[in-house]
Amino acid sequence: MAFNLNTVTIPEFSLNRGKGSVLYVQLAKELENFIASGTLKSGDRLPSERELAKQLGLSRTTVVNSYQELESRGFVRSHVGRGTFVCANSESTDAPFAWRGKVSATAELINGSWTVGDLIRDSSNPDVISFSGLLPALSCFPTDDYRRAMDKVIRSQPAHGLGVAPSEGEWRFRTQIARRFGAKPEQVLIVSGAQEGLDLIGRCLLDPGDAVIIDRPGYVGAIQNFRAAGARLIGWDIVRADLNELEDLILRYRPKLIWTNPTFQNPTGRSLSLKERQELLELSYRYRVPLAEDDPYRDTSLRGAAPPTLFQLDAANNTVIYIGTFSKTLAPGLRLGWVLASEYIVEQLASIKERQVLFTGGLNQLVLAEFLENGTYEDYLTRLKEEHSKRLNVMIRSLRQYFSAASLAINSPAGGLHVWCHLSGEVETRQLARHALSRRVVLANGEMFYPDNGAGVREFRLCFTSMSAVKIEEGLKSLSDAFIAAKSESSGLKRSRVSIV
Amino acid sequence: MAFNLNTVTIPEFSLNRGKGSVLYVQLAKELENFIASGTLKSGDRLPSERELAKQLGLSRTTVVNSYQELESRGFVRSHVGRGTFVCANSESTDAPFAWRGKVSATAELINGSWTVGDLIRDSSNPDVISFSGLLPALSCFPTDDYRRAMDKVIRSQPAHGLGVAPSEGEWRFRTQIARRFGAKPEQVLIVSGAQEGLDLIGRCLLDPGDAVIIDRPGYVGAIQNFRAAGARLIGWDIVRADLNELEDLILRYRPKLIWTNPTFQNPTGRSLSLKERQELLELSYRYRVPLAEDDPYRDTSLRGAAPPTLFQLDAANNTVIYIGTFSKTLAPGLRLGWVLASEYIVEQLASIKERQVLFTGGLNQLVLAEFLENGTYEDYLTRLKEEHSKRLNVMIRSLRQYFSAASLAINSPAGGLHVWCHLSGEVETRQLARHALSRRVVLANGEMFYPDNGAGVREFRLCFTSMSAVKIEEGLKSLSDAFIAAKSESSGLKRSRVSIV
Repeated sequence: MAFNLNTVTIPEFSLNRGKGSVLYVQLAKELENFIASGTLKSGDRLPSERELAKQLGLSRTTVVNSYQELESRGFVRSHVGRGTFVCANSESTDAPFAWRGKVSATAELINGSWTVGDLIRDSSNPDVISFSGLLPALSCFPTDDYRRAMDKVIRSQPAHGLGVAPSEGEWRFRTQIARRFGAKPEQVLIVSGAQEGLDLIGRCLLDPGDAVIIDRPGYVGAIQNFRAAGARLIGWDIVRADLNELEDLILRYRPKLIWTNPTFQNPTGRSLSLKERQELLELSYRYRVPLAEDDPYRDTSLRGAAPPTLFQLDAANNTVIYIGTFSKTLAPGLRLGWVLASEYIVEQLASIKERQVLFTGGLNQLVLAEFLENGTYEDYLTRLKEEHSKRLNVMIRSLRQYFSAASLAINSPAGGLHVWCHLSGEVETRQLARHALSRRVVLANGEMFYPDNGAGVREFRLCFTSMSAVKIEEGLKSLSDAFIAAKSESSGLKRSRVSIV
Repeated sequence: MAFNLNTVTIPEFSLNRGKGSVLYVQLAKELENFIASGTLKSGDRLPSERELAKQLGLSRTTVVNSYQELESRGFVRSHVGRGTFVCANSESTDAPFAWRGKVSATAELINGSWTVGDLIRDSSNPDVISFSGLLPALSCFPTDDYRRAMDKVIRSQPAHGLGVAPSEGEWRFRTQIARRFGAKPEQVLIVSGAQEGLDLIGRCLLDPGDAVIIDRPGYVGAIQNFRAAGARLIGWDIVRADLNELEDLILRYRPKLIWTNPTFQNPTGRSLSLKERQELLELSYRYRVPLAEDDPYRDTSLRGAAPPTLFQLDAANNTVIYIGTFSKTLAPGLRLGWVLASEYIVEQLASIKERQVLFTGGLNQLVLAEFLENGTYEDYLTRLKEEHSKRLNVMIRSLRQYFSAASLAINSPAGGLHVWCHLSGEVETRQLARHALSRRVVLANGEMFYPDNGAGVREFRLCFTSMSAVKIEEGLKSLSDAFIAAKSESSGLKRSRVSIV
C-alpha cells in the first residue's frame, strides 16, 4: 500500500447532534461511506484526531473512538507517530465477494502493531532522508567482484546456480559459513535473510500460548513475528542485563525460547560482557531453555574484534541457535543469512523451510561462497568499516552540534549500524517524528522496540550507515528544526492545559 | 540430510527368542543402539524389510513393526519406493540438551509424508538421470541477456537491486506482470517462487481443521503444505473433473478453499475446457468458496495458446487467487513467482510475507522486468518450446519403443513439463522405482500426488524437459530394464505365494 504523506480533506457532512445520538458511531459510519464510495482511498492519511475534532466541532474523544471503531473493522490503520491511514478498498471493488470475511483467525491476530515495514518503507525513497531502516553503506558494495563471481558461477555451475538447491543450502556455502564458526557444514542452514531464520525457529519451537523471553527493547521484526505466532512475549531489560532478573523470568514464565541479540544490540548498541554471556548460557542450560542468538551486527564492529558468540562459548552444551546475515554488511537485497544449530534442529528447520519456500536460490549462495573462499569478503569489510566510521563520526558530531546534552542523550556505538537516542525533556518521539516527517526526515520510534505498550516514548534509533555524510548532516539539521517545532508545540500545549484548568 | 543410495549392512547381534520375548521391540532397541553409537549414521539406508527379515531369520512383520517403532520415535524415516533411512543423530552428539523434546506440536504434524524434497533431491546430481523434479531445459537459459540486464540494474538502480524492496514486490515488475493478465499492479504480489504463494495463501485463509478441496491427483507441495497447516484435504478427481461431484464435495465439506491447477495439470497433464472453467467459477461464486488457480505451466504450451485463466474469466466476480512462476520457464533458482488477487488479499498476503521473510530480493525482479519490457522473455520462450518439443518427442518415441501399450499407458501432453504414466500389469510403481534407482534412474511415484493413502500405486510421472535427449533415451532404456526386473520379481512373488497356499 502506498502512503500519502499529505493529509486528505474530509468532505462536509452533517451529524445528528440530538439527544440519544451516538456521535462517534455516526462519524465512523460517514467515514466508512467515504471509503466505500472511493472518496477516501487506500493510503490516504486522515486528519489527526485533534484536527478533525476541531473541524467538526466534536470532542477529541469522539474522533478517537470513531477511528478505533474503523480500525477494529479494518478500514483504517494507525501508525503511531505517522497518523491514521485508510487501508481498506471500497467494498465496491471487491463486491460481491467479501474477502474480508475469509481471512483466517491466525492472519487476523496481528493487525495494528508496529512492523518492520514501518521501518523500511522509505529506505529506497530518494525524496526522504531515512535514518529508520538499518542498511549498510550500499555505495561500498563490491559491484565488480559480484558480477565477476556471478559470471563464473553461471558459466561453471549452471545447474547449481539456476536449478533447484537443497532446502538446507548449497554445501559449498554451508562449508564456508561453518568454517567461520568452527562448526560442521551439517550444522548450517542457509536462509533468505535472518527474518526467515527467525520465522523458522519460531515455527519449529513455539506453539500458540508459549512464552518467549526477548530483549527489551529489542528487534521489532522478532516482536512482530512471535506475536503473530501466538507467543506470549516477556521482555528482559537488556540494558540492565540482570541475570537474576532473567532467572526470575524463566522460573515465572517457563519460556520455550530466549531470544537475544547480545552484540551491538538493536536498538541499544549494548554488548554483553564475557561474564554475562557465560551466566546467560548457564541459565539456558540449567533450565533447559533454548537460546536464540540473533547476531546480525558481528561483522560491523568498529573497534577491534567483537566479543565471542554464545554459539561458540556453548560448544559443549549445544543449547544455542545462532542467526547471522549478510544484510547488514553486504546488502539486504541478496537475501542471504544462516542459522547454526544442532544437526537435529537444522533438519527440522529445513523441513519447515521446504514446505514454505522449497529453497533459497543457489546463485547468490555460490557467489558468496566464492567471496568467502578468496578473501573478497574480508577485504570488503575493511573498506566498509572505514566508511561506516566516517559516517558515525559525522552523525555524532552533528547530533552534538544541533542538540544539547541536556535535551538528547546518545550512545557512541562500537559496532552495529545505529545510534540510540533518549529525549530528556517534554518532547516525545512521536511529536518529533511527526515534525521530522513533514521535513522529509524519518527516524525509528523507540516505542516499536518494546513488546509492551507505552514504553520507549522518548527514545528513538538513528541509522548512521545508510545515508551519505552530506545527507546525514542535512537530515540532522532538519531533525533539530523538527525538535524546536515539537518543543514549542509542547510548551504551547502545556500552557493551554493550564489555561483550561 | 544426505541420502546414501547404497544399503548399509547391519552388524551382527543376538536376539532373545525365548517365550514371552517381543522380537520387534528387541530389534528396534538394537537398531536404536547402533544409531546412538554412530554405527548407523544419518542418511544411511537400512536393508529392506524383506532383506533384513531374511538375514535375521525373522518374519517380515517383525521387521516392519520395528521400523515403524523407530519411525514413530523419529530415528528413521521411510520414503515409499526408496527405502528406510536413518534420520536421527546419535543422542550423544546432541547430549545433554535434548532438542527432540523441544519441537513444537505444529512442526511435528507432518513428519513422514511425501515431500517436494523427495522429488527434487537428485535434480542436480550428475550421477543420476532424474525424471523426477519438473525443471525446464536449463541449457536454454539466456545467460548473456541475464548478465547484461543484471549489470544494467546494479549500475542504474543499486538501491533497488541491493537494498530493501517492498514486501509486495518492485512496482516496475508488478506492473509488467499485471499487464500480462489485464490486472492492476496493486493486484500483484511478488513471491519467492510459487511455493511461497501457496504458503501465504494457506496462512491467510486457513485455520487448523479447515477443509480444502484439492486436485486428485495433485501437486505434492500443496498437499504437504496444507497438511502441515492442519487443513483437512478433500480430493476432487481432476481427470473426470465432474462438476456435480465438486458441488457435492462443497456442500458436504464446506471448504475454505478450492485449490486447482486447471492448465497442463500436474501430474495428469489435463486442461479444463472453457465450459468446465465457467462451471467451476460459478460454483466458487455460488458457494462463496475462494478458488486458487495454480498455473505454473501456462507459458510452456506446446500447441498454440493455453486456455484462458480462471482469473481472467472471473474478472467481474473476483473470487480467484492466481499463482504463477518463472520456475517452469526460466529457472527455479531465480525464486520468482507472483500472486494475482483482489487488492485486499494482496495486502493481507504482503503483511504475512513481511513477518516471515520481509521481502523478495529486488535484483532478479528488476532483471525480469527488463526481460518482460524488451521482449527478451517472449523470444526466449520460442526457443525454449522448440527444445521442449524435441525432448518430448524423444521421450514419447522411447517409451513406445521400450514399453508395450499393454504394459504402460501414457498421455502425450500439449504443455507442461511432464508425461503421466500408468502401469497396467502386476508391477507397482514402488517396485519399478526401486529397480530404477539401482540403475541410477529416478521417477516421481504416483502415490505422492494423492492426498489419500493407497492410491496411485501404478502411476508415475516423468519430466521430459530437464534431461538432454541423449540422457532421456539412456534413462528410459534403463527404466525398461528396471521394469523387466520388477516384472520377473513380481511373478516370482506370485509363484511363491501360490506355493505357500
